[in-house]
This record gives sequence, C-alpha cells and structure tokens, in this order.
Amino acid sequence: MIEDYRLNPGLLKIRIVLIETSHPGNIGGIARAMKNMGLSQLVLVNPKEFPSAVASARASSAADVLNDARVVSSLDEAIAGTKLVVGASARLRKVSWPQLDVRETAKLALETVEDGEVALVFGREDSGLSNAEMDKCHYLAHIPSNPNYCSLNIGAAVQVFAYECLMATEIESVHTKGYKHTLASTEQLEGFYDHLYQALQDIEFLDPAKNARFMRRMRRLFNRTQLDIKEVDILRGILTAAQRQVSKKQINENDQNIILGE
Amino acid sequence: MIEDYRLNPGLLKIRIVLIETSHPGNIGGIARAMKNMGLSQLVLVNPKEFPSAVASARASSAADVLNDARVVSSLDEAIAGTKLVVGASARLRKVSWPQLDVRETAKLALETVEDGEVALVFGREDSGLSNAEMDKCHYLAHIPSNPNYCSLNIGAAVQVFAYECLMATEIESVHTKGYKHTLASTEQLEGFYDHLYQALQDIEFLDPAKNARFMRRMRRLFNRTQLDIKEVDILRGILTAAQRQVSKKQINENDQNIILGE
Repeated sequence: MIEDYRLNPGLLKIRIVLIETSHPGNIGGIARAMKNMGLSQLVLVNPKEFPSAVASARASSAADVLNDARVVSSLDEAIAGTKLVVGASARLRKVSWPQLDVRETAKLALETVEDGEVALVFGREDSGLSNAEMDKCHYLAHIPSNPNYCSLNIGAAVQVFAYECLMATEIESVHTKGYKHTLASTEQLEGFYDHLYQALQDIEFLDPAKNARFMRRMRRLFNRTQLDIKEVDILRGILTAAQRQVSKKQINENDQNIILGE
Repeated sequence: MIEDYRLNPGLLKIRIVLIETSHPGNIGGIARAMKNMGLSQLVLVNPKEFPSAVASARASSAADVLNDARVVSSLDEAIAGTKLVVGASARLRKVSWPQLDVRETAKLALETVEDGEVALVFGREDSGLSNAEMDKCHYLAHIPSNPNYCSLNIGAAVQVFAYECLMATEIESVHTKGYKHTLASTEQLEGFYDHLYQALQDIEFLDPAKNARFMRRMRRLFNRTQLDIKEVDILRGILTAAQRQVSKKQINENDQNIILGE
C-alpha cells in the first residue's frame, strides 16, 4: 500500500536549480510539483520576484519548499558541492553534447545520490540556458515531446523530471495495490467452469456440438480477468439462481403432469 | 534517436476529459501540456468558465487544442464511443478497484488505440471524481507520489499522463494478443450492464437493497476484462437463455392456472 511507501532519502539530495525565473507563479508551481514527488531542495538563481504572494498561492501546501528555497546570485553557487549537474534543454542542440532523456537522467541521478548531491538546472522561461551555463553541465537532458511544439512550460518540465526521479526510486508498482483481493485458485476456477458448463446446459444455452470451443472462449474471458474468490462466489451464485428457475419450471411441469393425470 | 522520432498517430485517439474544471488557467495549461506531448482531443464536461482569456493565455501556442475542445454536459457524452475509460485518482481508494499507475495506463492506452478511442478522465480540482463517475471507468489510475502530499495540480497530473503516453509510443508493445478481437464500445458495455441488471432481477438473484453496490462490483469485474464485441454477445445470449427459463416457468404457471380453472 502507498501508505506504507517510504520515500527514498536519495530524493532529498536532488536540487532543482532555476535560473532567472520571470514568473513567480512558476516558482510556486514548481515547489508544489517537487513536494508531490518527494523533492525538497529548491535553489533560485536571481529570480525576478521572490518571495512572492503569487508563488505562495501556486505552491498550495508546499510552502515549506518555498520557505527553504535558497536564493543565490550565480549558477556556480547553486551547483557548489554537487557530483552531477544536468541542464534541461527544451530543444536538442546542434552542438554535440552528452544527452539524456528524462528517464535516463532520473536513473543517473538516483545512482549518483549514493555519492553526493545532484543538480537539475532549468533555464529562463523564454531563452533557456546560455552556452556558458551549459558548459557547467555534465549532460543536457531533453524531454521527449511533439517535434512541432516542444517548448514545455517550465513548471511542467520540472514536474516531468521530478516524477521520473520518484519513479526511478523503483517504487513497487501500484498495480492491484489498494485492490484488496485474494485471487481464486486454479481449483476454484475449475469449479466455476464446471458449474458454468452445467448451468449453460440446464438453461438450454449450450449447443453440445460446440461445447469445447465455447468453453475455451469462456476460459479465455474469465482467466484474463483474474477473478478473486468473492467474485467466483458471486458468479456461481448467479448460476445457481438461473438453475433454480429451471428446476422451478420442472416442478411446475411435474405439477401440471400430475394434474393432467400423466 | 529522438531526432528521428515521429509522433504515433495513436496519440490522436486519446481523449483528455476534464470534469467541471473550476480554473480556466488549468484548462489552458492542460491544452499546452497535451500539444507538447502530441495529444489533441480535449473534452470539457461542464467547465466553469470556457472559452476564457485566461485559458488562452496559459495555452500559449496550443490555441488549436483549445479551439477544437468539445464542451459537453455529461461524462457519458464525453466517453461515448470509447473502448477504454481510465479515471485519474489522486489517492488510492479504500474500495477495491482495478488500479494502474500512469506508466501502465499509458501502455494499455497505446495498446487499446489499435481498436478504438481511449478516454483519460480527470475530476474536479477540489473533489476529484464521484463514485458514480468512477463506475464508468474501467480502471483508476494513480500517479506515484509523496504519500504526505499526493495531490497534484490537475495540469501537472495531465502533463505526467500525457508524457507517459508519448513515452509509451516509443516502446513497442510486447503484449501480443493471441486472437483478433474488436473491443466492445462503452455503449455496448452499458447495454450489457442494463441487461445483466434486468436478468438478475428476473432470475430472483438480485437483492434490490444492495443493487448499487452489487452492480458496481459487476462493473469492476467486467470493465477490467476489456470484453470484445463477440463476448458481449455471448454473455447477453446467456442472460437471455436464463430469462427464457423464467418466462417458460411463468407460462407453465399460467397453463397450470388455466387447467385449475383460475
């Protein structure tokens, strides 16, 4: 269960560095996105407006991330003490630069936090990172996107990176979690198929000439559903109810026959 | 390589459905997030304010997605004609419901678009999806997140789903279907549920006091199965056969009454 899920402490070693962000609303949205994904270190290089009421409003319940944000005056300060610096790039540069996509970046980041801190650097809303800033980056990271419209909002971009970082902590899949059920055993399923086979004959549905093929189809349907025990009980209850109608009918027929003196 | 990457046309078959969105800025941000990831179908169920200048401003260069957005008055309209409906849920529900994470959802969506349209449904900013709305969903999808702060902004949530859909197009599906089938449409499934509901009453199985909860359970079972058209036909054929037993019984009872002179 997610309630039992504990965040990988490595996430706390990942810094989100924003360079000269223009819109305080973006800073607030980013704080929220970070906290949602278990990140906490926000570093602002010369933000245009900070602190800001607009940022706080957009941060929603991530005020702690905003309050703890460090404001610095250079990228060097922001990345000081890190072991890995990755710059987010909206477009793929013509220059040859070691490039990663977001998923690869997150993997590398989570490997690196074993050794020390990691910085993910995001440039200005309008012009991104300068070449001098890219020179400080070990890699450029790119978000796969529509080639005709690849410029993500900076908050959306941080959200995707933060999400992949959390995913990279290899949390267990939530698939079927929260879905409390005990799968039916093979024997229970066979019991259901036998019951189904009998009931379909009782209600005069099944054409005996096509039995095998038909039952194969039913197995394909219910096997892939991964029925739980309770569901098998319910389905068999329905079959029994249908069979009861048949026996009632037969009782009526018998009554009728008695009346007719047969 | 990313340079060679062309958008998978399957993305155009994925609808983003937003229910009663309060803030037009979110609608705009979502249009942008969609276009960034190659999605184009936006369906708005009773938006509070739309069209809206705020939405247009936030959409940036995704005005085309906003302009093409369909405004409808019910979730039923929004999901009409789809083969798969997945509801986004901020938290894991206590109720047992088939659940996927975002990555699994995207994979399933990209497999399903081979057969038809897919709807990803997002609830209200404050209160999410109602139980009645979840009943229409085949799965609930959950974004893995910080258990102490799992409520993503709706725009951020759509961004993550859209990103995973695009990522899923890059990965060839290993899911090989052993047989060719056309998935049943939402309308065909609703027809089956109506028939099931009636038949279960006819065969005196259904306790009317527990109808809603029981039918929710049946939906959960059959929705996750992704029934194909032929299977729906077969299941309805079985229901009809069971109902026929009931009417035969009634005929017999009537016959009997005639014989008895009543």
